Amino acid sequence: MGKQIGKQSIAFDKVVYILANTEVVGKKEKDGPLGDYFQNIFDDHLLDKKTWEMTEAKMQEQVSNKVIELSGLSKDKIRYIFGGDLMAQLMATTFGIKDLEIPFYGVFGACSTFGASMQLASIMIDAGLADNAMAISSSHYSSAERQFRFPVEFGYQRPKSAAWTVTGAAAVILGNESGAVKITGMTTGKIVDYGIDDAMNMGGAMAPAAADTIVRHFKDFGTRPGDYDLIVTGDLGVYGKEIACKLVNDEGYDISQNHMDCGVEIYSDKEQDTHAGGSGCGCSAVTFSAMVMNKFKIGELKKILFVPTGALLTTVSTNLKETIPAIAHALVIERNEVSK
Amino acid sequence: MGKQIGKQSIAFDKVVYILANTEVVGKKEKDGPLGDYFQNIFDDHLLDKKTWEMTEAKMQEQVSNKVIELSGLSKDKIRYIFGGDLMAQLMATTFGIKDLEIPFYGVFGACSTFGASMQLASIMIDAGLADNAMAISSSHYSSAERQFRFPVEFGYQRPKSAAWTVTGAAAVILGNESGAVKITGMTTGKIVDYGIDDAMNMGGAMAPAAADTIVRHFKDFGTRPGDYDLIVTGDLGVYGKEIACKLVNDEGYDISQNHMDCGVEIYSDKEQDTHAGGSGCGCSAVTFSAMVMNKFKIGELKKILFVPTGALLTTVSTNLKETIPAIAHALVIERNEVSK
Repeated sequence: MGKQIGKQSIAFDKVVYILANTEVVGKKEKDGPLGDYFQNIFDDHLLDKKTWEMTEAKMQEQVSNKVIELSGLSKDKIRYIFGGDLMAQLMATTFGIKDLEIPFYGVFGACSTFGASMQLASIMIDAGLADNAMAISSSHYSSAERQFRFPVEFGYQRPKSAAWTVTGAAAVILGNESGAVKITGMTTGKIVDYGIDDAMNMGGAMAPAAADTIVRHFKDFGTRPGDYDLIVTGDLGVYGKEIACKLVNDEGYDISQNHMDCGVEIYSDKEQDTHAGGSGCGCSAVTFSAMVMNKFKIGELKKILFVPTGALLTTVSTNLKETIPAIAHALVIERNEVSK
Repeated sequence: MGKQIGKQSIAFDKVVYILANTEVVGKKEKDGPLGDYFQNIFDDHLLDKKTWEMTEAKMQEQVSNKVIELSGLSKDKIRYIFGGDLMAQLMATTFGIKDLEIPFYGVFGACSTFGASMQLASIMIDAGLADNAMAISSSHYSSAERQFRFPVEFGYQRPKSAAWTVTGAAAVILGNESGAVKITGMTTGKIVDYGIDDAMNMGGAMAPAAADTIVRHFKDFGTRPGDYDLIVTGDLGVYGKEIACKLVNDEGYDISQNHMDCGVEIYSDKEQDTHAGGSGCGCSAVTFSAMVMNKFKIGELKKILFVPTGALLTTVSTNLKETIPAIAHALVIERNEVSK
């Protein structure tokens, strides 16, 4: 059974394994720098649905079914699903996983949702309360634009600090049977609000939350940046990445040499006009499932800190000129050297 | 450490105690049949805020601070907050609890959110991963009307099956120190969708989910309705209550004698023109914190099954004429006969 470590962390005792993972992305993500890692793509932006929201639900349906198939487990062996998305009232997740008939907790942490969901699923495994559990998350460029911003057809000017919502969904199945990759610890984030109120600069709003969780993680576990091959944040983008590295450095930890941000990696601004980087619950989820898991499996990575980051804004709060509170959740993920 | 029981349940081993509870409600709730139970009310519908959404956040701020005070614990002894609300992206919770700087998981289960949050907080205590954790939830009539329905000023005709969103917030602090009331088990719900697509009949949409979880609970624990003083559902309302009781009865369990629905209890349709009953995350939360906890403390209740119920609809899904999936989560709550 796991132990409380420091102020905000847990060290797992019964090791939690990632038994299966999969993702699906759209055409723009396939065309980006990580394209070769993505196996499952769809070209038409809508699949066979009439609305982007139901398309996003269909993406969750696809990855949830696929990940169960890949795990080799029957559906009734998955005791819980933890998951969410950016839509109001988690519409994509509700409609995506409802037919699975698996006990479900809806999780909302904006773009940190995949991290929060993996943490809660890990706790169930570690505590012996589930043998297997799924974590799932998604975002869709067009459903997010409609939810948070302007009609796409309006063609508003995007500042350089704006992010591009990733069209993608990913799911993992965690379990207590030995697998190639394991989750050994976690740090839960608290809401951090530095007073930024520009919804076109979510990286700036999230950077302090990412820094807060990363520094807290080092302190709780007594580790240093060099103990990890990579520190992988979710979707800070180029400006947020710079701010986060500086804030962490101010606390005496230099992560500049081994920090990677999924939002920075997933698109090429020069080629794809995406500006600060990718964002959305799908950004860290698909990058983790495709690139990071691949690098673990081929032995290129041995231990990382995975830190999905979320900007907790709403259209109502943005229109009220309220600030953008943010949160980040961290997981220690390691290659299992004695895997089956 | 808790054990998996049956298909969807957990029996807690390390007993989880409710160390403190509090709630705040608006004037209409104070004027209703449960008015005498409510200690903290506000009259002006806005507190000192300019918008209903920020009022709802203020309600969460009030109850979260108050419940910590009542627990006698310092803030840093609360290791986690689990909570949510009905607003898109959990706006009321984010802005309500952000200044507490306590590690946080946003939970969305529509009006079942208080149950889901109590369950996840209980798991942390039972697994030894927290000494104390908070569960919190809220709803506000006007913010919910704006989020899901029509402008209040429009004065649309409400059918008899419509519910009235409760203006209220409640919070509990769970911990491993002995208290007067304890949580001994839980059953996690799965999403149930009987195809109802009438957003003015949420009770009808939720009744099958409530029945599914209640029946599953009896089967998992091998208990019967008579083993509980009360089976308390969240916000089915008068029509949903009738359907749920029938569906549970069809499975061989007669709960008609000891079933109570918070939505039915909180208003008087005859006096208050509320129709089917109260709804919203706040409905089961404030009824539990005020009436149910009071009845435990005076010894009128010894053991209940508390089953908050949620209709997982959104304006987008409603406008698309999609169905209303629903979910319900159950907790076994008992008077601690040897309390301090």
